[in-house]
Amino acid sequence: MFSINHNFAKLQGSYLFSEIARRVAAYKTQNPDKDIIPMGIGDVTRPLAHEVISSLIKSAEEMGKAETFRGYGPEQGYDFLRNKIAEADYKARGISVAPDEVFVSDGSKCDTGNIQEILGADCIVAVTDPVYPVYVDTNVMAGRAGDFDEKEKRYTNLVYLQTTAENGFEPPLPSGRVDVVYLCSPNNPTGTALTRAQLKKWVDWANKNGSLILFDGAYERFITQKEIPHSIYEIEGAKACAIEFRSFSKTAGFTGTRCAYTVVPKDLMGADPQGGKVSLNALWLRRHTTKFNGVSYFVQRAAESVYSPEGSRQVSRAIGYYLNNAKIILDGLENAGIRAWGGVNSPYVWLKTPGDMTSWEFFGLLLDRAGVVGTPGSGFGRAGEGYFRLTAFGTAENTRKAMLRVLDLKL
Amino acid sequence: MFSINHNFAKLQGSYLFSEIARRVAAYKTQNPDKDIIPMGIGDVTRPLAHEVISSLIKSAEEMGKAETFRGYGPEQGYDFLRNKIAEADYKARGISVAPDEVFVSDGSKCDTGNIQEILGADCIVAVTDPVYPVYVDTNVMAGRAGDFDEKEKRYTNLVYLQTTAENGFEPPLPSGRVDVVYLCSPNNPTGTALTRAQLKKWVDWANKNGSLILFDGAYERFITQKEIPHSIYEIEGAKACAIEFRSFSKTAGFTGTRCAYTVVPKDLMGADPQGGKVSLNALWLRRHTTKFNGVSYFVQRAAESVYSPEGSRQVSRAIGYYLNNAKIILDGLENAGIRAWGGVNSPYVWLKTPGDMTSWEFFGLLLDRAGVVGTPGSGFGRAGEGYFRLTAFGTAENTRKAMLRVLDLKL
Repeated sequence: MFSINHNFAKLQGSYLFSEIARRVAAYKTQNPDKDIIPMGIGDVTRPLAHEVISSLIKSAEEMGKAETFRGYGPEQGYDFLRNKIAEADYKARGISVAPDEVFVSDGSKCDTGNIQEILGADCIVAVTDPVYPVYVDTNVMAGRAGDFDEKEKRYTNLVYLQTTAENGFEPPLPSGRVDVVYLCSPNNPTGTALTRAQLKKWVDWANKNGSLILFDGAYERFITQKEIPHSIYEIEGAKACAIEFRSFSKTAGFTGTRCAYTVVPKDLMGADPQGGKVSLNALWLRRHTTKFNGVSYFVQRAAESVYSPEGSRQVSRAIGYYLNNAKIILDGLENAGIRAWGGVNSPYVWLKTPGDMTSWEFFGLLLDRAGVVGTPGSGFGRAGEGYFRLTAFGTAENTRKAMLRVLDLKL
Repeated sequence: MFSINHNFAKLQGSYLFSEIARRVAAYKTQNPDKDIIPMGIGDVTRPLAHEVISSLIKSAEEMGKAETFRGYGPEQGYDFLRNKIAEADYKARGISVAPDEVFVSDGSKCDTGNIQEILGADCIVAVTDPVYPVYVDTNVMAGRAGDFDEKEKRYTNLVYLQTTAENGFEPPLPSGRVDVVYLCSPNNPTGTALTRAQLKKWVDWANKNGSLILFDGAYERFITQKEIPHSIYEIEGAKACAIEFRSFSKTAGFTGTRCAYTVVPKDLMGADPQGGKVSLNALWLRRHTTKFNGVSYFVQRAAESVYSPEGSRQVSRAIGYYLNNAKIILDGLENAGIRAWGGVNSPYVWLKTPGDMTSWEFFGLLLDRAGVVGTPGSGFGRAGEGYFRLTAFGTAENTRKAMLRVLDLKL
């Protein structure tokens, strides 16, 4: 019988959100009259901006007429969108990114998952702990992560960079060899962000060691503080060592619309087995054009509209709405005497569970006594134990109500 | 310096369509007044059906209101679409496919490219020659194809099943070990289709040998003859040995809209290193939910509308239009004394170049003397030499004009 990819057997069950759903469902059955406020899922709730809807409708109408119909587009994205991205997201910030360094895709989850396909099987990969699980799981599938050590609760061949309150959630530079590191800033799940000075340490480290930084900036639009860079390419030397992932999902509420992009600079080189230098831009172009066929024309037009003056204003209003919720959460937790981080440059607030509660104990308490659903930090990695994530994607009214209930708990 | 995936260096330049574009551009520069008829690219040209446009607009409007906004959908696709597919494409033909055996995606190119990720690195893979290049290239990237033998013009570790006029374009069963075979019917590029009896031989072979059939049915909607199965699951035993790929691209003109699906039966098992049986449905679910994040909500609604009575009628009209063009091509070639195949269950016509012309020689002659652009068969593999592909995706008027010009050549 034909063989299967045996690395899949090493994957750990992705039980976090299904376990949350199970416990919430059980609670609802027992407490049918209780009003439950969901603050667990990292998904947007505000409708798409009017400019986006207009653009979708206009381009749908184009596709209904023979004269303006469009078939296959370029796999890397239409020039109208790649040019706009290079201009508005980079040039306007003083960063030089060429349109052919921009690859439009259907999501940063896909891009951060697929990117490792162009890397060597022998690369030593580092991730932060806690971490967005896709970075880990896709390397497990590719065989780079080794086996899961049940006792350590970690993969044997991954390097884990622990980020906790003790180091201010700044991932420490690795002491041993690391070829590839995934950095996410503003971070999911901790909501904290790397400053320019902190990120510079990583860029210098990568250039010194010949390592690659996979920089996930999906939450860039939430940045409010001057010292937080909007792109890793704000740091000198980053184009020689970093790939950047950006998304319209959280920027413009596109989680159900699906559009993102990845920047692979032409300066960026990896090594072939003979020690020769190979362009990662060329490798990703080949991967992207061979295993992907472009994003829906409507969706690319919708993404383009996000850059129009009115589109940008509408999108900023939604982001402002979520950031205001984050402020309500941070203030509420402070009033309740609970330590918390994030929420300033991010829709996520990361809190330390009161007392010695585990993440799941706090989940149960919050659900039982306040009817609030959050996400246990331990679900994002061993170092997330004792932490808990609340998201700012609900309504302002519900967010306020939730924080009053937390205050009433007198923890 | 970090290492790259060195298998990418084994890929052969995908120069076919760029070389065609280069030659056409050069011809245009020298002959600015000549009217060129494109019959080379496998892309649709008829606009989307009205039902599809209505559905896109309606769902875009839903996304603009908080009450009906949708964020992340299920990665595997919304139930409304999976249920419709299981019902209309399978149950209506007497085939039992459960909705959770259907995985909605953004294209069959992606699915046929990604599917090998769940298979063992040691699988012996067979492809037809000529072949759709994605099957080959994605296995090269994964290291299964071996090296490219410049003299043989083939990869050392792939098994090639030659399909030519001599065997009626029926891929011969392999004599040696083959774990995985890609079959495309109706075929791209030859336009020929496997009959029920021919496909049964393959299903029986696969079940006898513990092999997997990756069945690409992207052109299913063009089938007109009773003896051609619409799904491999019409063949008894296929659910134990086959994955089926289907697409809305050619069915409903979705090449720029992006929607497809893959069926992975729950009966289908592969072997783990200990000889245990592993469900491919479970593996693909894990891959799909980890490296993909679902298709745009609008696009899934648009795909759903293709199944409505009016949507289906509109789509059939476009298919009928293309099939009529194919008939014009077949008749025209017959009148010109050129042997041709396909075009009856397919938008592709595959012709034998007159005399001893190579595929590229015929390309040059057709362009120079008739202003018609087609695709040299040798671009699809060694066994495509001496053949040539014409597509039926143009206008009826241009298709007629092209065939009159071919007749005038008096080949």
